[in-house]
Amino acid sequence: MECYFDNAATTRCCQEAVDFMVRALREDYGNPSSMHAKGVEAEKMVKDARAAIAATLKAQPKEILFTSGGTESNNLALAGAAEALKRKGKHLITTAAEHAAVLAPMSRLQKQGYEVTILPVDEEGLVDLNALEASLRPDTILVSVMYVNNEVGTVMPVEEAANLVHSRSQAVFHVDAIQAYGKYLIAPGKTGIDLLSVSSHKIHGPKGAGFLYVRDQVRIEPQILGGGQQGGMRSGTDNVPGIVGMAAAARKAYENLGEKREYLYTLKQRLAEGLTRIPDVFINGPEPSMGAPHILDASFMGIRSEVLLHSLEERGIYVSSGSACSSHRRKPEGVLSAMGLCAQRRESALRFSFCPDNTAEQVDFCLEQLAGVVPVLRKYSRR
Amino acid sequence: MECYFDNAATTRCCQEAVDFMVRALREDYGNPSSMHAKGVEAEKMVKDARAAIAATLKAQPKEILFTSGGTESNNLALAGAAEALKRKGKHLITTAAEHAAVLAPMSRLQKQGYEVTILPVDEEGLVDLNALEASLRPDTILVSVMYVNNEVGTVMPVEEAANLVHSRSQAVFHVDAIQAYGKYLIAPGKTGIDLLSVSSHKIHGPKGAGFLYVRDQVRIEPQILGGGQQGGMRSGTDNVPGIVGMAAAARKAYENLGEKREYLYTLKQRLAEGLTRIPDVFINGPEPSMGAPHILDASFMGIRSEVLLHSLEERGIYVSSGSACSSHRRKPEGVLSAMGLCAQRRESALRFSFCPDNTAEQVDFCLEQLAGVVPVLRKYSRR
Repeated sequence: MECYFDNAATTRCCQEAVDFMVRALREDYGNPSSMHAKGVEAEKMVKDARAAIAATLKAQPKEILFTSGGTESNNLALAGAAEALKRKGKHLITTAAEHAAVLAPMSRLQKQGYEVTILPVDEEGLVDLNALEASLRPDTILVSVMYVNNEVGTVMPVEEAANLVHSRSQAVFHVDAIQAYGKYLIAPGKTGIDLLSVSSHKIHGPKGAGFLYVRDQVRIEPQILGGGQQGGMRSGTDNVPGIVGMAAAARKAYENLGEKREYLYTLKQRLAEGLTRIPDVFINGPEPSMGAPHILDASFMGIRSEVLLHSLEERGIYVSSGSACSSHRRKPEGVLSAMGLCAQRRESALRFSFCPDNTAEQVDFCLEQLAGVVPVLRKYSRR
Repeated sequence: MECYFDNAATTRCCQEAVDFMVRALREDYGNPSSMHAKGVEAEKMVKDARAAIAATLKAQPKEILFTSGGTESNNLALAGAAEALKRKGKHLITTAAEHAAVLAPMSRLQKQGYEVTILPVDEEGLVDLNALEASLRPDTILVSVMYVNNEVGTVMPVEEAANLVHSRSQAVFHVDAIQAYGKYLIAPGKTGIDLLSVSSHKIHGPKGAGFLYVRDQVRIEPQILGGGQQGGMRSGTDNVPGIVGMAAAARKAYENLGEKREYLYTLKQRLAEGLTRIPDVFINGPEPSMGAPHILDASFMGIRSEVLLHSLEERGIYVSSGSACSSHRRKPEGVLSAMGLCAQRRESALRFSFCPDNTAEQVDFCLEQLAGVVPVLRKYSRR
């Protein structure tokens, strides 16, 4: 039995997305910027995709800016807002739980002369709103808080953070929603989110596509310049297949969202309960019912993550140690560290992440395999 | 008969590319950064694609940096080199014939304190090598010259330019090869090209993919930061479907390259000769045999480009007025201006661009339609 439990790293592209993509690649293959019918066909596909995506966020189509993925969305949001607002101040705020695609651009901005405050998180990965409030200053121009942590599934209090940011500062509020979009109903306009980053391949859309929601009236500076596509905000020929594939996946993700979320919780709870029957296994992050529906992180004390990962892999079970987005490297400075977990617990952590295609049978199979393999590996490790 | 003669704007994705993409989307859908087998499969696909693309340039795989397309490649090359070399100097050189994806980043660098020299071009769109030589200075750090002009097909003397740049300066030499790759054998290592931009969708690969060749030892600063993929030079989950689709298209483009190029020249010559039989039609740019094999630009005096474009469109013939990459806007400052063409000639220019799927019958059909419609439209325009 194959169990792909690494859906927070990437997902299998859904057939609906592939069908749209093949149409864009082989039939309506024009350049949306061309003036003739072949261009107009392609432009229409992009327009429909933009409207469909905007609808999932109760946003306006013009508020959706297509990018090459979540990382570019985060980079564009941070560098674009910092550049646009630098005359108002140079203070930026983010959290210690963020993905490298936020922390690395923040670090570059720091080198460029901005001041960056990194808020601590508690043992569940939650940002301290009092600390946020205390760090807001008259020269704070940007606050960036992720919606769902990619490693442990913590759901951040983004609405409360948005309220604080807007009531106590002039800053724009960016949310990295890469692990939240398609799992939660998000209405950035109502919530006070000014910029919101999304990736396609986390929601069963293709890799190489993503978008940044930019609230109407919020100004950012474009980062990739050229032919002036997307109102000059992101030049380059529209990635029509990527865009229409992402939109198909988004539409599907938001069909019966509540039911799918509940289903994911049953899988996660089933795994969490099963893990309690294996000695010395600790859940990292929030209580399973409090965290995101699809992510469960657990430490198998006494076994290195990689060793257990490869043992499970041999049994057809695919999970992650830390974040797969970090290109093989283990980050000592990751969110588990920020949560104050000890080295033994960090180094034995595995992330299980689900999608609606996973089944209870797969979870049971995984639990059986773990029950068999964990004691054996512990015996080896002790020698 | 449908005649898609806008292959310089974008091309139909080839079936070989689509097959690889569907495999990456539906079967080997892992994240190349994941440590388990699903990741390793995807990583292998990316590795093979990188090697295949490197082989077309007689380059090393590590010299290929995947991007989201030609525009990002140009932006990365220019901003990345300018940032990496700013301690050596702040003088940049380019030509008046470049695409907006070079001119716009150059203009931003100018605002950031760099000095930019824009070399003039002659009536065929050729850069003056004497002017290049005269403008090279001890503080020149970057020279950017396109290989094939996207509007009129001028083939720039890039090898001579590379020799000048390297013998007379310490600058790195960037080539926008977006219209040249797949039409010419290019060996940047031998030619003295340090950075070379390529787009996938101009060679029957998917939109949303491209690459930048970065010669070994040449240092640029990454522009999109995050998880550290591609050796930290371009973060973000690898766009596996885009990358493998592009590689399939590249392999195909370089099969029987010489034959395909000759075939394109026969189509172009057939069109050029046919156009001589219509009064007051002027070829813009170099002699057809001297320019790139796939691009022919011509002015139909007395008729506005858009009017003729839409007349042809009604007859199933798709061409371009100016560059389709400019998102519907006509650029008064385009290459036709730089070549010194008068307004009447610029405003009546159409670009015909071919691919190996086009046929002599299509060219003949197009010529018949032009012979019929041009006199009629001129009669209307004169009223």
